[in-house]
Amino acid sequence: MKFAKAHGTGNDFVVLPDPDGALDLTPRLAAALCDRRRGIGADGVLRVVRSAKHPDAAGVAAEAEWFMDYRNADGSVAEMCGNGVRAYVRYLIESGLVAADTTRMDLATRAGVVPVEVGPSLITVTLPRPVVGGDESALVAGMAYAGVVASVGNPHLVCPVPDVAALDALDLSQPPHIDASVFPDGVNVEFIAAGAPIVGADRHVHMRVHERGSGETLSCGSGACAVAAVVLRESGLDAGSVAVDLPGGRLAIAFDADLCRLAGPAVVVATGDVHVSALTGD
Amino acid sequence: MKFAKAHGTGNDFVVLPDPDGALDLTPRLAAALCDRRRGIGADGVLRVVRSAKHPDAAGVAAEAEWFMDYRNADGSVAEMCGNGVRAYVRYLIESGLVAADTTRMDLATRAGVVPVEVGPSLITVTLPRPVVGGDESALVAGMAYAGVVASVGNPHLVCPVPDVAALDALDLSQPPHIDASVFPDGVNVEFIAAGAPIVGADRHVHMRVHERGSGETLSCGSGACAVAAVVLRESGLDAGSVAVDLPGGRLAIAFDADLCRLAGPAVVVATGDVHVSALTGD
Repeated sequence: MKFAKAHGTGNDFVVLPDPDGALDLTPRLAAALCDRRRGIGADGVLRVVRSAKHPDAAGVAAEAEWFMDYRNADGSVAEMCGNGVRAYVRYLIESGLVAADTTRMDLATRAGVVPVEVGPSLITVTLPRPVVGGDESALVAGMAYAGVVASVGNPHLVCPVPDVAALDALDLSQPPHIDASVFPDGVNVEFIAAGAPIVGADRHVHMRVHERGSGETLSCGSGACAVAAVVLRESGLDAGSVAVDLPGGRLAIAFDADLCRLAGPAVVVATGDVHVSALTGD
Repeated sequence: MKFAKAHGTGNDFVVLPDPDGALDLTPRLAAALCDRRRGIGADGVLRVVRSAKHPDAAGVAAEAEWFMDYRNADGSVAEMCGNGVRAYVRYLIESGLVAADTTRMDLATRAGVVPVEVGPSLITVTLPRPVVGGDESALVAGMAYAGVVASVGNPHLVCPVPDVAALDALDLSQPPHIDASVFPDGVNVEFIAAGAPIVGADRHVHMRVHERGSGETLSCGSGACAVAAVVLRESGLDAGSVAVDLPGGRLAIAFDADLCRLAGPAVVVATGDVHVSALTGD
């Protein structure tokens, strides 16, 4: 079975080229591929399949030739992953499945068809604008951090801290304590500190994130969008751009009235063959 | 650059075939390969090189054709890794660098030439017998565990717990607290509980390990040898066999007067090409 390994700002994926939907990608196989010690290791699987060949996307095959069949590291199906879209499109280009000079395309996902722009290093995904809500707080190591709720399809809580030193000092090895009556399904908690002004962005912040179910991660695309939405609102801006520095690299988010454009790097680091029988012990 | 990913009981390696010693394997490249998010991801790198082509092994080229050039995940050079020897030899066979019907061979390592026996699923490495020392203790979550010191080239502290439930309940997310005046360079701490009798082994234990510098791992070959040495001594035996069940699988250790034979599985899960420029950002 052919595979590639790719990542966007440290959010990494096993990519499975399967244009004709011939693979039997069971939850067990997806989880075995993502096992970091006994498999390839990744945060998730991106199956590269034509929309016409996948039941979840057949209806949009005329709009978007390719469908992102995304699986979490535990093998379960997921709707959307902003970093995954970028890694998927980089793979399409490097593998020759789309033309090398592609500058824009539409990609089908379980969350709908997503417009994508392709540059030499950055890939930009257009998503619905996050919805900013009310105030809540999170406890880390017994200390309360005030924050603002935001929804990007999934729930987020964005908590400013005084400065980068305070951000670096946070112990996120345990989940932040949150009010379970407010967040019955859990919440991704982002901590942010203002960064020095940079050219080309209205605002600049440093961010760390604790993802529900995963712990601290190097990058979270939806979290960066939530952060940008909160930062712009706190600044009294309706539109504008925010640079977000994560442990895994920089994401740039730009808003207009309705849309959120998420830009960042994506690279393919290896390609090869998986020995499926060695992986699953079959 | 060609690579494979292999593991032995969940201790995983990036394998780099380099028979003629042509690769410039810098510490930075080794660390980038082992990066679990931005690289391939592994506990270490095994460079597969002929002894005659590597300065550290040229003197033993007549005894052992192949040299295990092992690097830790941080890029530093290491002398020995029992699980690594098994993964290395499995790769030699699967890649055709040695004959498919090889049943025994000698492998050069920085810790000397190591005899290896090859079976269809298990590979057996012969190592010097561990040296069992005196009593020490480790603190986990405020509770003291009495243990026995053992040296397998590297230092170990083997601590029995009452039963498997107590073993499973241990919180090894933080390093066990040990007496730094006794272990100035740190120590690997193994916790063990007796297992049900099994056919073909004189003793059977379950084991978890906290490796200095790495945290809890799925497997530690030298730790399993230390455990077997302590278990046999506590049983009043000079020679015999011990089955050790680790989170990553089963290792079998057999002792005679001077030697320790460590047997376990090793598999190659993938082969392919690494895109070095994407890996290191060059």
